[in-house]
Amino acid sequence: MPDVRLVALEGIPEVEPGADLAGLLGAAIERAGGLETGDVLVVAQKVVSKAEGRVERTDDHLATVLREARAVRRRRGDLVIAETEHGFVCASAGVDRSNAPGDGWVVLLPRDPDASARALRAAIAARFRVAPSVVVSDSFGRAWRRGTTDIAIGVAGLPPLLDLRGEVDRRGYELATTQVALADLLASAAGLLMGKAAGLPAVLIRGLSLPSGDDSARELVLPPELDLFP
Amino acid sequence: MPDVRLVALEGIPEVEPGADLAGLLGAAIERAGGLETGDVLVVAQKVVSKAEGRVERTDDHLATVLREARAVRRRRGDLVIAETEHGFVCASAGVDRSNAPGDGWVVLLPRDPDASARALRAAIAARFRVAPSVVVSDSFGRAWRRGTTDIAIGVAGLPPLLDLRGEVDRRGYELATTQVALADLLASAAGLLMGKAAGLPAVLIRGLSLPSGDDSARELVLPPELDLFP
Repeated sequence: MPDVRLVALEGIPEVEPGADLAGLLGAAIERAGGLETGDVLVVAQKVVSKAEGRVERTDDHLATVLREARAVRRRRGDLVIAETEHGFVCASAGVDRSNAPGDGWVVLLPRDPDASARALRAAIAARFRVAPSVVVSDSFGRAWRRGTTDIAIGVAGLPPLLDLRGEVDRRGYELATTQVALADLLASAAGLLMGKAAGLPAVLIRGLSLPSGDDSARELVLPPELDLFP
Repeated sequence: MPDVRLVALEGIPEVEPGADLAGLLGAAIERAGGLETGDVLVVAQKVVSKAEGRVERTDDHLATVLREARAVRRRRGDLVIAETEHGFVCASAGVDRSNAPGDGWVVLLPRDPDASARALRAAIAARFRVAPSVVVSDSFGRAWRRGTTDIAIGVAGLPPLLDLRGEVDRRGYELATTQVALADLLASAAGLLMGKAAGLPAVLIRGLSLPSGDDSARELVLPPELDLFP
C-alpha cells in the first residue's frame, strides 16, 4: 500500500453566485502541481451551493428550514433535525448561516449534488485530460455522537458504498454484512484539512486505488424500511 | 497547509492474545521510516482487543451481545443495536465474528479503549522519544445512512472534539454551534487504508498540526439529555 496524500487546494477565493467553480478549482489544482490518475477531488458543499446560486436572504430562518425539508424528524428549541428533499437527515435541512454571503443570508444544499459532482468532474477532466472522482461533502451531526463529521452528499466517478459481502477475512470467514461508506470516509479525510474557518473548500486525495462507479450519493441513504431510527 | 500523509503500517502479523502490540506497531513504524513529531497513530480495535485477550468462544452469540450491552436500543431479527458499557451505540454491542480467532469465536471491545490508547502511546513514546497521538478506531454503522464509517472509541494525546464555538468564519460571523469530531475524522481517514480484508490494522497520519489533549473518547458520546434518537 503506497502512501496516500491529502492535498488542500489553496488560494480559492470567496465563491460568488454564478462563479466558475470548476475554473477556480482547476487553477488551484494547477498551483498544486496538477492532477494525477486516480485522484479524488473532495469539494465542500458550501462553495458548490454558492456557485450555483443556492443562497438566499431570509427574515425567517425556520420557515426556510421547513421549506427545504420534506419531513421533520425531531425538533427541540431551535434545533430541527430534518430530512431534505434528497433524503439526507441533518440539522436545519442543510440550511446554514455560517460562511453565508451576509447577515440574514443562508446557504442551501445544492438541488442535485450528484449533478454538481458530475459537472465538476467533466469540466476538470476537459482541462486536465484526467477525470478525477468527485465528492461533494458537507458537515453533518449524527445520532448518539457529539460533533460533526464530513459526509458525501454528491459523488461522481466512484462507488459511494463498497460492498465487501462475499469477501473473506484473513481466516477465511466470510464478511457477511459489511458495506463500507467509501464516499463518507473520503469526505471525512478531506474534512481534516478543510476546517470551518480555514477557507480551504477543496482537497485532493491521491494514492488510493479505488474502483470506478456511477451510483448516486443517495445510495448512502438508508431506505425507510431499514431505518430503525425514523 | 502542507500535505497530509496517510501511511499504512505493513507487515503486522496476526495478533494473538497477550501479544506485545506496542512492540509490533513499533517495529512496523520503524519499517515505515520512524515516527515524527505530530504523528497520529490510528489502530484498529480488532488488534487491540485481541492483544488484550478480549476474545471468547461462544455457542450463543446473542447471549454474548446482550451481556456486553448495557442497553438494547433496537432489535430486528439478528440485528441488535445496543449501547455498550462505554456508552457507544453500535450493532451487536461491538461483538464481532469477523477476523476472530476461529469459528465460534468473537472479538469484544476493549474494556477501556482510552487506557489502551494511552498505553500504546506511552510504549511507543518510550521507543521513539516522540509521543504519537493515538486513536483506537472501530467500524460502526449509523442511523439513516448505509455502510460503516470508522470512528474513535479510544484516544490519547489529542482532543476528541474540536470546539470551534467562538471562532469566526471568513465574513466574521461567529460559528455558533460547531464542534468537529476530530478523532472520528482521523479514524475515518485511516479507515480508507485499513479495509476489512486488507490486514492493515494501523495507519500513521502525518502532517496535521493538532492541539494536544487528554480527554476521553467518551466525550464523543452524546449525553442522554441531548440524545434525540434514544
